[in-house]
Amino acid sequence: MNETPEPSEAGSATRRTPRRYKSDRMIGLSDGVFAFAITLLVLDLVVPAATAGDVWNELLHGWPQFLAFVISFATIGAAWLAHTAITDHLVRTDSTFARLNLLVLLLVSFMPYPTRFLSTFIQSDHPERIAVTVYGAAVLILMGLLYLLWWYARREGHFDPDTADQELTLFTRRMIPAISCYVVLIALGWFFPVVAVVGYAVIAFLFIVPFRARHVRTTSRPQPPQR
Amino acid sequence: MNETPEPSEAGSATRRTPRRYKSDRMIGLSDGVFAFAITLLVLDLVVPAATAGDVWNELLHGWPQFLAFVISFATIGAAWLAHTAITDHLVRTDSTFARLNLLVLLLVSFMPYPTRFLSTFIQSDHPERIAVTVYGAAVLILMGLLYLLWWYARREGHFDPDTADQELTLFTRRMIPAISCYVVLIALGWFFPVVAVVGYAVIAFLFIVPFRARHVRTTSRPQPPQR
Amino acid sequence: MNETPEPSEAGSATRRTPRRYKSDRMIGLSDGVFAFAITLLVLDLVVPAATAGDVWNELLHGWPQFLAFVISFATIGAAWLAHTAITDHLVRTDSTFARLNLLVLLLVSFMPYPTRFLSTFIQSDHPERIAVTVYGAAVLILMGLLYLLWWYARREGHFDPDTADQELTLFTRRMIPAISCYVVLIALGWFFPVVAVVGYAVIAFLFIVPFRARHVRTTSRPQPPQR
Amino acid sequence: MNETPEPSEAGSATRRTPRRYKSDRMIGLSDGVFAFAITLLVLDLVVPAATAGDVWNELLHGWPQFLAFVISFATIGAAWLAHTAITDHLVRTDSTFARLNLLVLLLVSFMPYPTRFLSTFIQSDHPERIAVTVYGAAVLILMGLLYLLWWYARREGHFDPDTADQELTLFTRRMIPAISCYVVLIALGWFFPVVAVVGYAVIAFLFIVPFRARHVRTTSRPQPPQR
Repeated sequence: MNETPEPSEAGSATRRTPRRYKSDRMIGLSDGVFAFAITLLVLDLVVPAATAGDVWNELLHGWPQFLAFVISFATIGAAWLAHTAITDHLVRTDSTFARLNLLVLLLVSFMPYPTRFLSTFIQSDHPERIAVTVYGAAVLILMGLLYLLWWYARREGHFDPDTADQELTLFTRRMIPAISCYVVLIALGWFFPVVAVVGYAVIAFLFIVPFRARHVRTTSRPQPPQR
Repeated sequence: MNETPEPSEAGSATRRTPRRYKSDRMIGLSDGVFAFAITLLVLDLVVPAATAGDVWNELLHGWPQFLAFVISFATIGAAWLAHTAITDHLVRTDSTFARLNLLVLLLVSFMPYPTRFLSTFIQSDHPERIAVTVYGAAVLILMGLLYLLWWYARREGHFDPDTADQELTLFTRRMIPAISCYVVLIALGWFFPVVAVVGYAVIAFLFIVPFRARHVRTTSRPQPPQR
Repeated sequence: MNETPEPSEAGSATRRTPRRYKSDRMIGLSDGVFAFAITLLVLDLVVPAATAGDVWNELLHGWPQFLAFVISFATIGAAWLAHTAITDHLVRTDSTFARLNLLVLLLVSFMPYPTRFLSTFIQSDHPERIAVTVYGAAVLILMGLLYLLWWYARREGHFDPDTADQELTLFTRRMIPAISCYVVLIALGWFFPVVAVVGYAVIAFLFIVPFRARHVRTTSRPQPPQR
Repeated sequence: MNETPEPSEAGSATRRTPRRYKSDRMIGLSDGVFAFAITLLVLDLVVPAATAGDVWNELLHGWPQFLAFVISFATIGAAWLAHTAITDHLVRTDSTFARLNLLVLLLVSFMPYPTRFLSTFIQSDHPERIAVTVYGAAVLILMGLLYLLWWYARREGHFDPDTADQELTLFTRRMIPAISCYVVLIALGWFFPVVAVVGYAVIAFLFIVPFRARHVRTTSRPQPPQR
């Protein structure tokens, strides 16, 4: 796990190879779960029956399922970006980190369930507040666990010491407001479910858009001309 | 992200490792989403009932689902080849590129829906023009986003400067006609749905067949004898 | 497969590349199967009907499906950690190892079935002992095959010779009690199904929690200050 | 694609990185499709109804679905081993190879369909010969395409020139008899469906068992003592 400079070059090749797998496999499993959870969402999109009279109308009436699909895609995408922001600076892991990561993946793989829930109840006449609450709670726990993962890796010194401090704190500056917003939206959603749904969509898109903007500027600044 | 030659060899190993993950994870997620979306298509193939009288007949009558399966497989395969053609020359990425890539993946993961739509309505007596239009629109947006991804990476100078210019413009010379064809087919499909379906099949196969033929010739030309 | 120090640097690059794929692909397939099996579990979670009277109540009555989801997630997660513990120290593989690994993956990909079984029968009034027995047997065979995989790799000398002996025996010290517990729980489950379910949950969590705790301490002990 | 020895070491790092992705992504997509197709098989296993009288009996009567599950797992596993045997010796690819590989993946991702077909019709009283024929044809085409992929890579000189000739011909010595057997079994299956099913199972297992036995011996023979 520790990528310490090895004394002999020949020995380091054979020795480092098995170690490298440790975080590689964690990342391999994580990308698999993210990719699968994000692709499973499409299974819940219902095609209008072939016997339907007005297919366009039927399709337009199914807007809640498309909305839920896009919100969840954006939310899982945002979680993936946040997860990437953590592993990008990681130089080693430990058993607790791997366990926390499994918890994050538990929530990621669970996301299709609240998505289906949301899509079902927005479509019905039933008060959709329960679906909205369950959905918000799932996203809140997911983001909270991502924050915990970042916090743990930082406390244990698992991040690359060369990473500038403002790059690492950028994660917090994004996550804390997002998590606060989810808390507020869950409370609001109990009374105004529509507001919460719109809120979930807005956060997911904001999260995706400028998340690493500053980060890139920082790393590319002192770069010498290539070739 | 930037693979600049590092001054010290010892330092470069630890420093470059976390950076390399950045595009690795984007590619890992992308391959995962492509692989799942392309494999999910099989779930919509319906097996004849065990109580069916004439199973061969039943199987042959289900030709629209096999047609839709093969067209969508070829289309997602073509999109994957185009995506590969972009990432092959990539030496760095940024936050906007990652976001555009997520949009591409949104469309890729969505493809099983229009496929199911197409397969359902070709089978019915219902005018299938809506299904054909929805399908064409999905593919058009997917290809348009892939073009945008390529255009953005080129504008930002993310491609390997060693790549010959004609290799990079090859992408355009394939994509522009393909996108134009999809526009024409969507319009045609409103009046002659069958023509559009045949057209989608033809483009997907043309796209797959000679896409990188020239590209390979270019790179293998000046190669010295190996060993 | 063998990562022996190559005499010439130039030759080693081309020669080692294809060899490296051998275990890379086995790990790629394994992570894929683990990721899909762990994410497929969500498909069996049923959303309350939109016409349900008391949705909260309906949701709470569905607790067996959430319990089965979490137990199976933890169990597959534990199996993945054990699998990682094997491949982390691996420096080469052979054909028999690849075959044993496929057997492990057969059981991993099978896990969603006993999970669905368990979730269906805990919910019913029917004696759930059969579901509990089938579930326990599946987990027992999975863990047994993982143990066999480890034992085989050790006997054939496929592990990195630099790995300390206590790291390698740590696997046994975890697996033997776990496997014994599953045997006891399957027997107990025939008479007290609830005890077995609780037991499966406890083992999975214990397995996940401190599995590599000692391992990390061992490797990080003699480490020189980084930079 | 071409891993020619680069003149300058510093330049080779930046230049080779994007090239390496070309076959990496093909392998990434392939492993994803193999892993997904092999894991999707579990979705077709039906759990006995919670209201069933004799659950054991119900479970035992469902043996055809478990048989089809295991045969298809072994068959896809065998195809994966054969695919691995090809990519292990690969030092470069081209556009035609990538296209042939997509055709192989089309068949791999299709396998859950004939599996479901087989499982449905073995269970029914209906003559299962059609299901057996469809299944055999799918496997035959899959293996034929794998052979074509190998043949093409060999003809184009894409294999590592250091690979001993007998290692490369080993592929043929396994594939030719397997393909011949499938042809015979499909013909036989028309009259004796049960014989064909048993045959498919036997080939898949034989294929998995000793496929690379010789191969490993060859590479590990001249190896100097490690450390």
